[in-house]
Amino acid sequence: MADLRRKIAPRLRLRAVGVVHSPYAEPSDLPPPAFAPPRFFERSVGTIEVFPEFAEALDDIEGFSHIIVLFHFHRAGRAKLKAVPPGQSRPRGIFSTRSPHRPNPLGLSVLRLLRRDGRRLDVSGLDLIDGTPVLDIKPYTARDRKTRIRTGWLRKKGA
Amino acid sequence: MADLRRKIAPRLRLRAVGVVHSPYAEPSDLPPPAFAPPRFFERSVGTIEVFPEFAEALDDIEGFSHIIVLFHFHRAGRAKLKAVPPGQSRPRGIFSTRSPHRPNPLGLSVLRLLRRDGRRLDVSGLDLIDGTPVLDIKPYTARDRKTRIRTGWLRKKGA
Repeated sequence: MADLRRKIAPRLRLRAVGVVHSPYAEPSDLPPPAFAPPRFFERSVGTIEVFPEFAEALDDIEGFSHIIVLFHFHRAGRAKLKAVPPGQSRPRGIFSTRSPHRPNPLGLSVLRLLRRDGRRLDVSGLDLIDGTPVLDIKPYTARDRKTRIRTGWLRKKGA
Repeated sequence: MADLRRKIAPRLRLRAVGVVHSPYAEPSDLPPPAFAPPRFFERSVGTIEVFPEFAEALDDIEGFSHIIVLFHFHRAGRAKLKAVPPGQSRPRGIFSTRSPHRPNPLGLSVLRLLRRDGRRLDVSGLDLIDGTPVLDIKPYTARDRKTRIRTGWLRKKGA
């Protein structure tokens, strides 16, 4: 197995392409989505700053209403295989949660793109803390929008 | 700038948590989404195998209709800041495309979860080649589903 693993999946090294500017200094400044006041995230705004050497890669993004931001959960503690989500009574498999305590500390947020100013993207829907390293930015397309979804243990409240 | 970068964003090392089993052996076996026959991807099925040491992290995922798979574009060539998408006439900023040739070769697919059998997930909507290293699996939730989207240069054809 170990040999297969090395063959299939050599370790991957990533670098930040930008950084998040956010009003939230600490993870505890952000409510879990299931417990956020109504419209909390719609009103939550900030800026994604892309480093100068990657600025050109942002061209044409202004035509998209939403972007997918992949980021490093840089404040996550050690990885867990199970965790008790906020408001839940029992542990859930980490791949069925959006917890930061993942085997690979990769996070994903779909944000509304309000404005591009050079290498700065003003966004809403922000659920990221200040200083979060940005690893990738992708356009949100019709293929990312799924209808008739089931959301398991999240039900209505946690969705 | 270099000092700031090192402070904000130390390099991140990732490891595969699983691997894709797919009927597509080569990237050229997959049509670009804009040129796929109707319902091509709905009928495109395969399996995500999670390695034994991460199997427990899959618990509770069977309640979700869709999963987000983050993967390594392990066959991507060198990174580009701009690329001409299939069927397009001019280069676009790479962050406004889903091209594999990204500064960090991270890919994202939203797949329909058909069945979980232990540490194997049967999926449809598959647009990944055989042997793709899987880095993370997340549940697709209502917060990932955006309405009234604009998709820039993709327009109707490329969405």
